[in-house]
Amino acid sequence: MSLLTVGSIAFDSIRTPYGSADEILGGSATFFSVTASWFTSVSIVAVVGEDFGEEQFRIFRERSIDTRGVEQVPGRTFRWKGEYTGDMSQAHTLETQLNVFESFVPKIPAAYRDSQYLFLGNIVPALQLNVRCSLPNLRASALDTMNYWIQGMPEDLAKVLATVEILLINEGEARMLSKQSNLKKAAAIIQKLGPRILVIKRGEHGATLFGPESVFTVPAFPLEEVYDPTGAGDTFAGGFMGYLAKTGDLSDSNLRRAAVYGSVMGSFAVEEFGVGRLLRLRPAEIESRYREIKNLTHFDA
Amino acid sequence: MSLLTVGSIAFDSIRTPYGSADEILGGSATFFSVTASWFTSVSIVAVVGEDFGEEQFRIFRERSIDTRGVEQVPGRTFRWKGEYTGDMSQAHTLETQLNVFESFVPKIPAAYRDSQYLFLGNIVPALQLNVRCSLPNLRASALDTMNYWIQGMPEDLAKVLATVEILLINEGEARMLSKQSNLKKAAAIIQKLGPRILVIKRGEHGATLFGPESVFTVPAFPLEEVYDPTGAGDTFAGGFMGYLAKTGDLSDSNLRRAAVYGSVMGSFAVEEFGVGRLLRLRPAEIESRYREIKNLTHFDA
Repeated sequence: MSLLTVGSIAFDSIRTPYGSADEILGGSATFFSVTASWFTSVSIVAVVGEDFGEEQFRIFRERSIDTRGVEQVPGRTFRWKGEYTGDMSQAHTLETQLNVFESFVPKIPAAYRDSQYLFLGNIVPALQLNVRCSLPNLRASALDTMNYWIQGMPEDLAKVLATVEILLINEGEARMLSKQSNLKKAAAIIQKLGPRILVIKRGEHGATLFGPESVFTVPAFPLEEVYDPTGAGDTFAGGFMGYLAKTGDLSDSNLRRAAVYGSVMGSFAVEEFGVGRLLRLRPAEIESRYREIKNLTHFDA
Repeated sequence: MSLLTVGSIAFDSIRTPYGSADEILGGSATFFSVTASWFTSVSIVAVVGEDFGEEQFRIFRERSIDTRGVEQVPGRTFRWKGEYTGDMSQAHTLETQLNVFESFVPKIPAAYRDSQYLFLGNIVPALQLNVRCSLPNLRASALDTMNYWIQGMPEDLAKVLATVEILLINEGEARMLSKQSNLKKAAAIIQKLGPRILVIKRGEHGATLFGPESVFTVPAFPLEEVYDPTGAGDTFAGGFMGYLAKTGDLSDSNLRRAAVYGSVMGSFAVEEFGVGRLLRLRPAEIESRYREIKNLTHFDA
């Protein structure tokens, strides 16, 4: 079933202990859509500048991603420059140029109105709410957010949280949003704010899914090298939502499978700078890593 | 089958955000043996001072733990004072009084010579080696160590590492020992030093077992309150080794089950100060939490 995402498209410049990359295609909508495209048909609402060319659009087309909702406006595309050091668990932002993203107001093309699944990437909560409310026929919608909105716009965030079924955030954000350091308690508090399905991402430690019926943990796939963690969270979301949209099934056992696909896809994302690895995937690689996570976690009852 | 541990017995004074406890029974041999006693018969080699009385010995007796190897000598018992703040992921030592532990030389009573499983708690590596070499008929031996010995006595540690089948250490120690920040690579390096079975403990994130045949991850059991993390690592080891000694089976699937029992027992340890919760357990509680971890990690292939 059709999956729509609203988020950022950016040019990222990244330094990690393994090397660096300059002005490569990034942003939440990019990582999410390229990933989800391995599971279902995906469309994007985003904004780019005049410097965004055929070369970039071709990347989305290669994955049959619908970019009719990508508005091109005068000015430069969003740019982010960041660095990872040590264990690479946190990005240090060196520079942010919002550019055309600063005045982004998502517009949903008529052709997208019948989307059944929605992923609201990390943008201003008031804009997320507008998008959510303009799509009344959704089967499920998911949200990402960040510390900046949790602290700076708690009321707007509360409004959009009340309208979504799924929230995907990281551990620190879950603690900040719930004002509770224990994750089990934090999850219970957050689930009362709206999203009955909560995925807490824990980086190299995997993720925990708090569903309406049960709690599920999935490890991160153990890799020998992590080249660039940028986009891993949006990639997890792309695998999770892509699989849910593909199957159209929000049952407890299917939510678990979706979380495993999230972890699988996240593990590919970090193996290269940018979306390179995610573009070159083969379905058999995805299924093989899914089985490896099964083997990594299985024990006899 | 019989399981022997050599380690510390201490009086701990602990402060956490949940409260404090003064001079309660602790030490690696205490946590390990009380835990393992739920699975198999356990004996201890340790040292205590004149201040160690009937009240303390009764605790071991209650769990049918053989304390004939607990030497009582003139002086005071080992004392440790520590504090946990914030997310309680690390203990801050406020005071260490080695007392009689300073000149501890483990002596293995004749009655213990036919022990089949051995856990060498975190003591001086040269003493661990002596104990290991005095027990030639072991089916498997396991070792714990710490940053202090990894940095301060690398040669002695290397010698004892070469003699054991199993090493249980935490994430930071694994990185320090292997001089490698990536855990998968670190594990491969450590397995070449001797122990073909490596358990890397990751606190609230669970543990990863690197076995001869496969890698296995087990989550920590999600708790709403962690009152006191002291002893959680030795408790994990007690569950892991206790189950291995009980079953006498070092197969891949049994190592996985042992790691789950390690996680289960660790989750009980932190629910109270000291060994109180571990003494009050019922076998049904252990089995129930084992099944809950199964449910927490299961997904359809």
